[in-house]
Amino acid sequence: MDKKFVYADNAATTALSDTALEAMLPYFKNSYGNASSIHSLGYESKKALEQARKKIALAINARINEIFITSGGSESDNWAIRSSLLMSNAKGKHIIISSIEHSAVFRTAENLEQQGYEVTYLPVDESGKVSPEQLKNVIRDDTALISIMMANNEIGTIQPIKELCKIAREMRVPFHTDAVQAVGHIPVDVRDLNVDMLSLSAHKFGGPKGVGALYIKTGLALPPLIIGGGQEKNKRSGTENVPGIVGMAVALEEAVGKMTDNIKKVTTMRDKIVASVLQIDGATLTGDPVDRLPGIASFLFSGLESKVIVAELSKVRICASSGSACSSGSTELTRALSGTSMIIAETENDNAESTKYGALRLSLNEHNTDEDVDYIIQELPIVIRTLRSRKPSPLF
Amino acid sequence: MDKKFVYADNAATTALSDTALEAMLPYFKNSYGNASSIHSLGYESKKALEQARKKIALAINARINEIFITSGGSESDNWAIRSSLLMSNAKGKHIIISSIEHSAVFRTAENLEQQGYEVTYLPVDESGKVSPEQLKNVIRDDTALISIMMANNEIGTIQPIKELCKIAREMRVPFHTDAVQAVGHIPVDVRDLNVDMLSLSAHKFGGPKGVGALYIKTGLALPPLIIGGGQEKNKRSGTENVPGIVGMAVALEEAVGKMTDNIKKVTTMRDKIVASVLQIDGATLTGDPVDRLPGIASFLFSGLESKVIVAELSKVRICASSGSACSSGSTELTRALSGTSMIIAETENDNAESTKYGALRLSLNEHNTDEDVDYIIQELPIVIRTLRSRKPSPLF
Ligand SMILES: Cc1ncc(COP(=O)(O)O)c(C=O)c1O
Ligand SMILES: Cc1ncc(COP(=O)(O)O)c(C=O)c1O
Repeated sequence: MDKKFVYADNAATTALSDTALEAMLPYFKNSYGNASSIHSLGYESKKALEQARKKIALAINARINEIFITSGGSESDNWAIRSSLLMSNAKGKHIIISSIEHSAVFRTAENLEQQGYEVTYLPVDESGKVSPEQLKNVIRDDTALISIMMANNEIGTIQPIKELCKIAREMRVPFHTDAVQAVGHIPVDVRDLNVDMLSLSAHKFGGPKGVGALYIKTGLALPPLIIGGGQEKNKRSGTENVPGIVGMAVALEEAVGKMTDNIKKVTTMRDKIVASVLQIDGATLTGDPVDRLPGIASFLFSGLESKVIVAELSKVRICASSGSACSSGSTELTRALSGTSMIIAETENDNAESTKYGALRLSLNEHNTDEDVDYIIQELPIVIRTLRSRKPSPLF
Repeated sequence: MDKKFVYADNAATTALSDTALEAMLPYFKNSYGNASSIHSLGYESKKALEQARKKIALAINARINEIFITSGGSESDNWAIRSSLLMSNAKGKHIIISSIEHSAVFRTAENLEQQGYEVTYLPVDESGKVSPEQLKNVIRDDTALISIMMANNEIGTIQPIKELCKIAREMRVPFHTDAVQAVGHIPVDVRDLNVDMLSLSAHKFGGPKGVGALYIKTGLALPPLIIGGGQEKNKRSGTENVPGIVGMAVALEEAVGKMTDNIKKVTTMRDKIVASVLQIDGATLTGDPVDRLPGIASFLFSGLESKVIVAELSKVRICASSGSACSSGSTELTRALSGTSMIIAETENDNAESTKYGALRLSLNEHNTDEDVDYIIQELPIVIRTLRSRKPSPLF
């Protein structure tokens, strides 16, 4: 097989869909008006904006006026969490998040702790799941918000959001879910889930970087995070990024339209990789074996360091990640991985000599091919063997 | 003359520069990696990001590590103002802004007032200028921040930022300037101005919408507004919008490179329009006659309503604005216009019968032509005459 290039880091970011780019170009070149301007060029932008909003709403079964555009998943998460606590009917200064949230939620919660809020970090089981029972036990009279992600970005585990949300609703606590890794990849229906807020980010499903949305259920009086000209019905100010928003909507429409096929295709590729990688000595699957994102094949390798595995794979032109892009450079195991503590304990038993585990996330999407999979399956065992045979560096 | 199309709303937003779009495309199509990923595609994005940052720094005479990417001017303004007050060495709960700030500053200040902060709104003179003397008089021991815009978006007035900042520095109060309308259009040198923070937005100088920056002077420990993966040296989280950032940098480099010529060309066009429009009965120039942005020709017309003028101009294919895009739909005079109260008082004397003034902003840039100017000069008097001759509607 020829040395080829394989992009297996789609959970970090995806290539922009051709359809999305095509749809964006007219708004860069010709219809560049400010969507708030009241002349012809402004109206064109406004129209494109509202059509895009409609598509996004449709894709997650929201009402059109429940979709608010942001600059991405991080802003959506920060907004949902911070502003929930400022609602006039906020019940107190206690919030609940899972212990494996993305940093946009986790570190925002930590920051709030420093500002006098109290945070409960719900543990997860060995598959990375939060238990509805446990959630019930930690809700208090002063719980102002629960934020639990729909699908984890490192280990792919999908949470039982509907059940979790049901408990929140019974206790009258607003529920936010970070669905950045879920939207466009698995069915997301805000009415069925019954969530109050849901974050999404375009570049995870073939849309452009720097644009996302927050779903806000009708009736929830969430104050804005960014104040100014009053765009987005006074909830998110700033000149609307019309090309980006159009690109997001078109990419999402495309992803949702092809979802059934994509899930089938991507799951098959993922399972083939998982089956093959688990043949490698000292390799463990992380995350739930069943309830996981179609595209995420995530592993721990005993005795190796994450970033060394990723770097070595990059040499054979395979783009992968240690877990999340933001922690790619770090040598520590991330929260999601150390949170799924049972896995690590088990792995530890198997490899008593070493306490080091290198994490590897291969994240696929519908643009990957069987050849990509074959190449990964061919190269990864060689990479792991080579790294294991190396004399440990003084730093390791 | 043929009926043509004239875009004279460049202060609302500009067309994307061709050079910028060309520079962006590779980062949409091929080098789409996450700039935080540690594989080859990630490094390409990282490299592009840092080259862009260098260009932006150079354009405003900042150091590279003083440039922090945001989603636009509104986020930059919100961030600078809110986070300044959270700095550990913040002197108190008092802030000073001018009375003609953009909503991103003004409404953020108003929001802070509701949260227990105290705000002094500095008045402006008839030309829209803040006086350094007056600033000196309102600074208090507990003043935590001064925020005064570099150039106004409605009337174009350029503030004496260097002098204002000198006073702030003497009194050891951090100084932020919203330079969204200035950057790329007039020389902006952060070292010479000696400001602590400066906001800019790409789409005002030929860059894409949805991306901007905040200059933060070395040594100023401004906490982040958006927390998460730790991008932008932990100051602004979120997957970097690499194509957008590259587009912003290239557009800014282009604008600064051609600035001397552009200022000359645009000023000549503007002055021709001003001279002609002032021939129209009941027309007044708003803003400073000399210290104003090259591109902004802004007027009040007695007895007319802003949005009617804009709508009528749109019918003859001239895109203009009543003042700012965000207030385009409003029938009230904006802060900047009622702030420059002397002008209005004078106009009132001239037209004792009417207390209505319609504002019109024609904003040009280097892509406008002499033909555009001629067309405006030809059509505007007709529009005003037609509107004046109409039977007043019952609502007016
Ligand atoms: C689960 C999750 N939440 C939030 C984010 C943040 O999204 P963005 O980078 O678009 O701000 C990401 C990805 O970076 C993610 O995977
Ligand atoms: C002076 C000024 N400040 C801030 C902004 C906000 O910038 P943006 O729309 O990019 O968020 C604008 C334009 O909208 C402006 O003219």
